[in-house]
Order: sequence, then structure tokens, then C-alpha cells
Amino acid sequence: MLENKSMKQFKETLEEMNEVDVANFISELPQRKIAMVFRLLSKTKSAEVFANLEVEEQSHIIESITDKELGEIIEELYLDDAVDLLEELPANVVKRVMRTATSETRNLINQYLQYSENSAGSIMTAEYVDLKKYMNVREAFARIRRIGEDKETIYTCFVVSSDRRLEGVVTVRDMLLSEEDAIIGDIMDSNVIHAKTTDDREYVADLCSDYDLLAVPIVDLEGRLVGIVTVDDVIDVLQEEITEDFDKMAGITPSDKPYSRAGVVDIWKSRTPWLMFLMISATFTSMIINRFEGALAACVALTGFIPMLMGTGGNSGSQSSTAVIRSLSLGDTEPHDIFKVIWKEIRVAALCGLTLACVNFAKMFLIDRLVLGNTGVTFPVALTVCITLFFVVIFAKAVGSTLPLAAEKIGIDPAVMASPLISTITDAVSLLVYFVIANAVLHI
Amino acid sequence: MLENKSMKQFKETLEEMNEVDVANFISELPQRKIAMVFRLLSKTKSAEVFANLEVEEQSHIIESITDKELGEIIEELYLDDAVDLLEELPANVVKRVMRTATSETRNLINQYLQYSENSAGSIMTAEYVDLKKYMNVREAFARIRRIGEDKETIYTCFVVSSDRRLEGVVTVRDMLLSEEDAIIGDIMDSNVIHAKTTDDREYVADLCSDYDLLAVPIVDLEGRLVGIVTVDDVIDVLQEEITEDFDKMAGITPSDKPYSRAGVVDIWKSRTPWLMFLMISATFTSMIINRFEGALAACVALTGFIPMLMGTGGNSGSQSSTAVIRSLSLGDTEPHDIFKVIWKEIRVAALCGLTLACVNFAKMFLIDRLVLGNTGVTFPVALTVCITLFFVVIFAKAVGSTLPLAAEKIGIDPAVMASPLISTITDAVSLLVYFVIANAVLHI
Repeated sequence: MLENKSMKQFKETLEEMNEVDVANFISELPQRKIAMVFRLLSKTKSAEVFANLEVEEQSHIIESITDKELGEIIEELYLDDAVDLLEELPANVVKRVMRTATSETRNLINQYLQYSENSAGSIMTAEYVDLKKYMNVREAFARIRRIGEDKETIYTCFVVSSDRRLEGVVTVRDMLLSEEDAIIGDIMDSNVIHAKTTDDREYVADLCSDYDLLAVPIVDLEGRLVGIVTVDDVIDVLQEEITEDFDKMAGITPSDKPYSRAGVVDIWKSRTPWLMFLMISATFTSMIINRFEGALAACVALTGFIPMLMGTGGNSGSQSSTAVIRSLSLGDTEPHDIFKVIWKEIRVAALCGLTLACVNFAKMFLIDRLVLGNTGVTFPVALTVCITLFFVVIFAKAVGSTLPLAAEKIGIDPAVMASPLISTITDAVSLLVYFVIANAVLHI
Repeated sequence: MLENKSMKQFKETLEEMNEVDVANFISELPQRKIAMVFRLLSKTKSAEVFANLEVEEQSHIIESITDKELGEIIEELYLDDAVDLLEELPANVVKRVMRTATSETRNLINQYLQYSENSAGSIMTAEYVDLKKYMNVREAFARIRRIGEDKETIYTCFVVSSDRRLEGVVTVRDMLLSEEDAIIGDIMDSNVIHAKTTDDREYVADLCSDYDLLAVPIVDLEGRLVGIVTVDDVIDVLQEEITEDFDKMAGITPSDKPYSRAGVVDIWKSRTPWLMFLMISATFTSMIINRFEGALAACVALTGFIPMLMGTGGNSGSQSSTAVIRSLSLGDTEPHDIFKVIWKEIRVAALCGLTLACVNFAKMFLIDRLVLGNTGVTFPVALTVCITLFFVVIFAKAVGSTLPLAAEKIGIDPAVMASPLISTITDAVSLLVYFVIANAVLHI
């Protein structure tokens, strides 16, 4: 359609499309056409579409439109989207945006930019409906009709006193199901679930998902309502926090950039530190192997099972740490459950260890000795390997479950105590156990 | 308060508390008090609290109340909660629940129980507000007031034809901001974002979060509206799907039971299969080591670096696979980006590999040789280890990024292609590369 220049029809199609779809469509256009298509949109639609674009396209559009058009978009944007935008744009573009905004918007934006990253304040928006206790339902609806157009949600309204203290919450549902003369003060819920601007954004997300809320009110340190966080932003927070957990658990420094937009050097920077730390930590395993060089030389078959023992230890530990980390982050396990968890993990580990040791014993004789003809696999060697395996699984699962819980207790993110770190610890311990048992069984 | 038996006050406090908090409070009570406290709640409150309890407490309560009380609770529950309940209860309790439900509820429940697990049908609820195109806003509000009490959401209303085909969607917001005489058919959005009962529940969750919806309508194969999924259920789905990803990535068979409630045998069953598979796969690494026994005997210093090489390979691969798996599940990367991703990962790997190789070279001379006095670390040995390290990192990252993308392409869950599997592959390849390079550099 763009090619055929049937502009009017094209414009109408754009207006009817969902803003998310228009944004996806625009981001797939060649750069020179982006601004052209964007300008076809109506004022309201263009702000909605703008909020759904990636920062690259946003910058490009900002560069191609006039100050007046830019000012209109900034005023139409919800405050939290405007703040997100400014946090990502290059400094010279930010200057231009701030110049075109009205002084009222500018003040609000400046205030929001001061909340620390990942705080409730940094993700809230100021576009909520506030009501007074003494209003009746008819007056409340009149107010919603008057100011509701620009609000991020109108379904949850917040009742504030004259000094803006949060007194209650009332939903449009409550109001629709009440008489028109009912007084807001009587139908509101004064037991308001809320968060402070300084609370962690994850806490707000948990409130919203635990209590099935559509919006969480955010108050300042004096208890005055300053903003709300809506459920759609909560979903974004949850996804971001989970991506951070995945990154940390894989030994990657978390970054705000999605993978597809991160450059090669960014990725290199986020991945090398942990790889290097873990590589250098492996010095311990080298030391242990060198120390027991004699034992390995005396019974060469032992060397072949080192990777299997270390691998199984790493996998066992990573199962436990992953299960515990996820359980902690869902609030299913609390740090004070530490002894209950360790006791459970040790019993699981004893069962897993026993199963694996038996299967491995059979496997060593059937596959390694009979099929592959490895004559080094004697009864004492198999015994050494299988006893070690049993203890390695127990140790790995005990460490894998203890470390995340201990981290949470002392205020470190448990996600850091995940498989790479635990593998490195179990590698060293597996080897020590292996040589001690080899010494006892094989007398080498 | 429970101790002091000031029952009236206690009852009032319970009514005022949020249902989630009452549920938490009840689940911490000793068993014999649970039913007593639960009976103090009003009819509506008790159903709300009931929906928030865990299945153990639900069963206990069902056993302690009369059929009449049980019937009342079942009728008050939202249909999706009732279905969830029935899927988890033991068979004899289910029988009793079904007997006490009205025949209408029983038919609906039976219909819902037929949707396959993880389908949109299995998580939807039938409690939505339906409107007709020809109604005006005043009539629509009258209908919401009349039937809205029991609906899971009233804010998004669905416009259906006389044969229940979905024709449009209209929000309470649209209606509040329109004239009272406006016709629903004119203000509704006829471009409805919806899902089919047979779609995966993850697809519904993605629709809801991508388009910031409060409810997603679900239609049957003939396009008739049969239910809705609300945003609070979407958050639960997201969390469950993510827990499944974490589990799969750690080599755990996913289960519906939260960690804290899973028994030792359950956990053992979910963890042993992958551990065993990976343990047996390690036969390849054993074979490689045995094959190159001579080389290891000729240069004993080489053995000490095997764990470091395998560990770094595993960690490098797991970084790439985690980043790619998460990016795929967020929709940030698509399977057809496979060559772009591999090219990016190879460049990152070359940088990481080079950094690690240089640092390791320095470390081997400074720490291993000078500080620890390992005289086996000669220039050719260090060269062998560092060249191997470089190639191992490149191989691990290439495999770590390719496997999840390939899995997604052929319809396997990419989360299975995570660190345990990739470590096992890189372990074997690292060793091969090590011995080939050792042969070339050291001529052994």
C-alpha cells in the first residue's frame, strides 16, 4: 500500500491497527520511510505508537520531526514512558526533548529521574485518578469522565486527603455496583496495599501478583500518594528481573540491552569477568591433580573417570541450586527454611547418589570392560569410582542448596550462587574425595 | 485473639483483612483450628479465601464441612479456580465436590476438564460480561450492574452476536468516556485480539503482555466466545512457564508441585533421569582419555589442566545457550536469526577466547610455575593449553547458541539445550582438541 501511494486508505488502516502492531510495522521499514509513515498518524495514535518503539527508532523520529511535533508527543506520553525514553536517549537529544516539554512536564520528569534505578519510584507513573472521601459515586464518575482520558488506569481510583495522604482505594467495579448516592468514604477499602518510592520494584511486582491488583499506589516517605504502578508495567518488571536471574545464573553480568541489540563488545564485557574468575579458580583442581600424580600413574584407569565425576557433581549441584533459587524468588521457600531444605536435599542426594552409583557400577563392567575392552576397569577401580560418585552427589546437592540460602540470608542475590560457581567448588572437592577413596580402596 | 476467644472482634478483623492474608494466616494455623477459623468467614469471603489456599488445606476443609457448605463454596468459586481444585484433589473428594455442585456448574466443570493441559481452554474462566452490538452505553451499564457481581472482570466487555460469535470488545473506560446514548456497535473495537481454546497458554500470556490487555477472549474452533483469561492468571502462567524453563535448563523434569511441597521421592524421580543420561554420555570422555593415555603419560603436566579446560568450555557454552534461550522466549530473537546469532557468538567467542588465553598464559607462568613451583609448565605446555582454551571457547559458544535455535526450529523446547547437555558435548570435544594440539605442539 505504501508503494501504491493510496495514502488515504493507508492512513485509515494505520489508525485502525493496534498500536503495538503499528510499532512493529514501523520498526521493519527502511529508515528513510519511518518518519514519513509516523507522520501519517493522528496525534494520540502517534504517542501510543511512539511508546512502543525501540530507542533507535525513537531517536530517529525525534531527529526528523519539528520541535512543535516533538512537544506534542512528549505531552501525550505517559510520564513513565517519557522518563524511560529520556534515560536511554543520547544527551543532545535529551536536551531537545526537555526544551520542547512544558515546564510542568519538565519538573515532573526531573523529579522522576532522581529515583534510583530499580526503585518503585523509577517505574511509577503520575497519571492516576484521585478522589475525595466526601464525594458520592455520581460525582466520582463525573470526575473520571473529566480527567480519565489521560490516565493510565481509571479502574482503580485512589482516595486522598487534602494534604494528598492516601486514605483508601475504590474500584470502578465497587462504584458501578453501588448506589449513585453512596459516599466514596463508605465504599472505599481503607486497608490499602501500597509501596514506598524507595521500595525495590520487585517488591511492587510481588504485591501486584500476590494480591491480583490492577495498580499499586506508591507513596513518598510522608505517606503522600505520588504515583501508581500498573499491572502491565509489573509484567515487564517480572520479565526483566527474571532475565537478570537467568544472566546471573549463567555467569553473565546483567545488562538492560536485549540480546538482539547488544553489540559484540558489550557481550564480551558482560561475559569475560566470570569466565576469568572461574578459570583462575580452577587452579585448585590442577593443584590437586598434580599432588596426586603418583596415584594416577599407579592406576591409569582412574584418570578416565575424572570428567564423569566432575560432570555429575556439577549437574547435581546445579539442579539443587536452580530449584532453591527459583523457589526463593517465588517466595515458596524462605531463608529460615535452611535446615529443612538441606535435610530434604541430603535425602534426595542419597537416593540419587545410590541410583547413579549402582547404574554406573553395572555400566563400568558391561560397557567399559566388556564392550570397550578397557581391562583397567577392575572391581576395586569400579568400587572406588562408585563410592566417590555417591559422596560427590551428596556434597554437590548440599552445597548447591546451602549457598543460595546463605546468600539470601546475608543479603547477596542468591542467583549468583548458581551452577558455574557450584561446579567449580564441586570439581575440586570431587577430586579430593576421589583420591582419598582411591587411596583407601586401592592402597595407592 | 484466637486464644482469647473474643470471637466477634476476631470475626470482624478477618472480614476486613485481604483474602490473600487470611489464606496465609489460615495455612499457618494448626490443622484442627483451620476448619474452625474458616467457618467464621462470610459466604463470599470464604470462597475467596478458599481459592487462595493450597490443595492440602483445601482438602482438609472439604473434609470438615457439610455438603451444603461445600456446595455453596463451589458455586461461589470462579470456574477456573474450581477446575484447578478438581484437577488436584484426590478422586473420592472430587466425587463429593461434583455431587454437591448444581447440575449447571457440573456440566461446565466437566467441559473444562476436557481441555488439554497447558491449553488456553484449561486456564480460561466463563465469568465474563457479554454485551450486544445494538445496546447503548446506558443499557450496557445496567447489564454490568445486574450481572457484574460474579464476573472475574467487568472492565473489558465482549460483544457477541446472537449465535455467540465474538464481534468486538469494549472497555468500561470507552463507555465512561462516551455519551450515554452511544451505541456499543459504534464504540467497540471490532479488531479483537483473541486466542483459540486449543492455543498454548503461553501464547495467551504473550498476547496479554505484548498488547497490555486486562483480559484475553478465548473462542472455540467455530469462533464462538467460550471464556476469558484475565491478567492475574496470565502472571501465574508466566511464572509457571519460567519455573519450567529453569527446571529444564538444570536437567530437572518439570512438575506442578512447588519445591517446598514436593516429597523426597518426587524430587528424586524428577532429577535422576538427566543425571543418569549425562553420566552415561560421559563414557565418550573416558574413551578419549583412555585413547590418549600415552600422551598424558609422556607429559604429566597436561592432566592438571583438563578440569580447567572442560570447566571453561562448559561455562562459555552455558552463557551462550542461556542468553539465546531467554532471548527466544522473550521473542527478542527468532529462529530465522540463526546465522546472525552464530556470527555474533563467534565474534564474542573469539574476543573472550583471546582474553582468557592471554590471561591464562600469564597465570600459568606466574602462579603455576613461579608461585606453586610446577616445573612441568614449560613454554610448549602453556602454548598447548592456551591454544586449546581459545578453540574450546569458540566451539562451546557456537554449540551453545546453535543448539537452542535448532531445537526451536524443529519444534523442541530450546530450554532442554542448556548447560548440562552442552557441557557434556564440549567436555568431549575439548579433550579431543587438547590432544590434537598437544600432539602438534609437543609431538607426543
